[in-house]
Amino acid sequence: MSIHVGILGYGNLGRGVELAVQAAEDMELTGIFTRRDPKTVPVAGKGVSAYHADSLSSMKDKIDVLIICGGSATDLPVMTPKYAADFNVIDSFDTHARVPEHFANVDKAAKANGKTAIISCGWDPGMFSLNRLYSHAILPAGSTYTFWGRGVSQGHSDAIRRIEGVKDARQYTVPVEDALCSVRAGENPVLTTRQKHTRECFVVAEEGADLARIEQEIKTMPNYFDEYDTTVTFISEEELKKNHSGLPHGGSVIVSGTTGAENEHTHVIEYKLTLDSNPEFTGAVLTAYARACVRMNQDGCCGCKTPFDVAPALLVPESPEEVRKHFL
Amino acid sequence: MSIHVGILGYGNLGRGVELAVQAAEDMELTGIFTRRDPKTVPVAGKGVSAYHADSLSSMKDKIDVLIICGGSATDLPVMTPKYAADFNVIDSFDTHARVPEHFANVDKAAKANGKTAIISCGWDPGMFSLNRLYSHAILPAGSTYTFWGRGVSQGHSDAIRRIEGVKDARQYTVPVEDALCSVRAGENPVLTTRQKHTRECFVVAEEGADLARIEQEIKTMPNYFDEYDTTVTFISEEELKKNHSGLPHGGSVIVSGTTGAENEHTHVIEYKLTLDSNPEFTGAVLTAYARACVRMNQDGCCGCKTPFDVAPALLVPESPEEVRKHFL
Repeated sequence: MSIHVGILGYGNLGRGVELAVQAAEDMELTGIFTRRDPKTVPVAGKGVSAYHADSLSSMKDKIDVLIICGGSATDLPVMTPKYAADFNVIDSFDTHARVPEHFANVDKAAKANGKTAIISCGWDPGMFSLNRLYSHAILPAGSTYTFWGRGVSQGHSDAIRRIEGVKDARQYTVPVEDALCSVRAGENPVLTTRQKHTRECFVVAEEGADLARIEQEIKTMPNYFDEYDTTVTFISEEELKKNHSGLPHGGSVIVSGTTGAENEHTHVIEYKLTLDSNPEFTGAVLTAYARACVRMNQDGCCGCKTPFDVAPALLVPESPEEVRKHFL
Repeated sequence: MSIHVGILGYGNLGRGVELAVQAAEDMELTGIFTRRDPKTVPVAGKGVSAYHADSLSSMKDKIDVLIICGGSATDLPVMTPKYAADFNVIDSFDTHARVPEHFANVDKAAKANGKTAIISCGWDPGMFSLNRLYSHAILPAGSTYTFWGRGVSQGHSDAIRRIEGVKDARQYTVPVEDALCSVRAGENPVLTTRQKHTRECFVVAEEGADLARIEQEIKTMPNYFDEYDTTVTFISEEELKKNHSGLPHGGSVIVSGTTGAENEHTHVIEYKLTLDSNPEFTGAVLTAYARACVRMNQDGCCGCKTPFDVAPALLVPESPEEVRKHFL
């Protein structure tokens, strides 16, 4: 029996989910759901239909799990609780400070209707979170470091694009190599924000714009850039398209800690991702958790969950025997 | 309420577990259990008592979980099913080919008595297995590589010690750097056994022994060394003690796979361990799974499990709210 999947939202992430669902042997894509006019949405996959989001209300029986591909700032806080009342749902909610509120809202809607929701499925939050937790379970007094990059930060790129005189921009978050080396060596350094990452900005300016002012505005932008060593490089629109059109990302979670009667033994655990496409990888993680979500609902496990609550075996289509045989 | 832990078996691994249990805020060590005369067992921890294994039968009510620290060849296949009838149990069973049989035996004993058992908890099998599975869930068509080392293989060291004229020996498994680099670059190479690892042997020979014969016997030993490029270095007993007394180990699980309409995006996931003490790290993993085992039993989840069946949140003492706050 295939798992019937709906995708709500069809930006980069929705397209990433579409690819992952189509690659899954045990899934069928019921449809793409969008708040735009579905006729204007060019669905990539063959034989896949786009519907208006409003039509979801009449398709409750046709969808086992709905993967919600929206932004964490305004979309998901509304959409995930709303749809959790009618569907098993998955999202990639990543606004850390608002997790308790989002969790509570989704939990209430899902529990009241016998549905299962898994929030914050991606790589951070998601796989990185899992590795922070697993490593803490093993080395409870260890130090945890998360490095991001080298990769494109879409939030920071957007922030630059909002500056007057900027036509387009791409921002790369880059981990500081010396800091990485020290952490990997188990040296347990104390690192400031500036010592962990640098920010590289590639900016296409409007003709005649004041480049010095733009550079200054970027480098002093509170929260986004002021605490970092930032470089700004002005490039042509052609160069941006040619060399910076991808959405690579990645990073490392590194935990170091000690054991021994006198803490004489150091251990370093590193989980490292090198991703050519952030949205396609995130979409693949969402899809794996969608499978687990359906299974947990079938087992009567309702309410809001996170990847911390999901037994790993639920993520793959293989049987428990096959899983033990091939992966143990 | 503390979790009361018993440790059965007190070699390197048992001592590693002892340290981890004593470092756990929510655990109390009920005792060390041994098949030797407990008077002859020098327990490392303060205030910890050693008992004969036979006394376990009278302590069923005093122990929430029994961590069984025995060898996979002959100890665990007998001990884990035996004690799973009376206790929640954990082991680090690592004989891959015999997992189905061991699982079935343990499952039968545990289920019949309402107990929970988790087998194969360590780093391989264990954390490496989890990373093979998680990565497969995300990149189902990806290629999985496991590299071990640089680290001491106790099985291979023992095999050398059984050769006539060998007084002591230490064998290091070393990953081949070129192979690692190629895999990390997502090149997806096809690698023979010889291309993945080399073996370095440090041997203390008996006085007057035929060194050339010993070296030849090592290098041609079937399964252990014949498929590898092996180096043999004869050293003094003092040098072995001074430079090779530790039990470091580690390695990497690396999975690379593609996404995209034309598989144009490559992703590389690496989980890497660098461990100063293999038994202390393994002991820490066993201890985390012991916590999960007790909780799963309290939830009515009986029978034999592996790390694949354990939701990560069960491994740490923190509440679900704290876990989401600190690790998500």
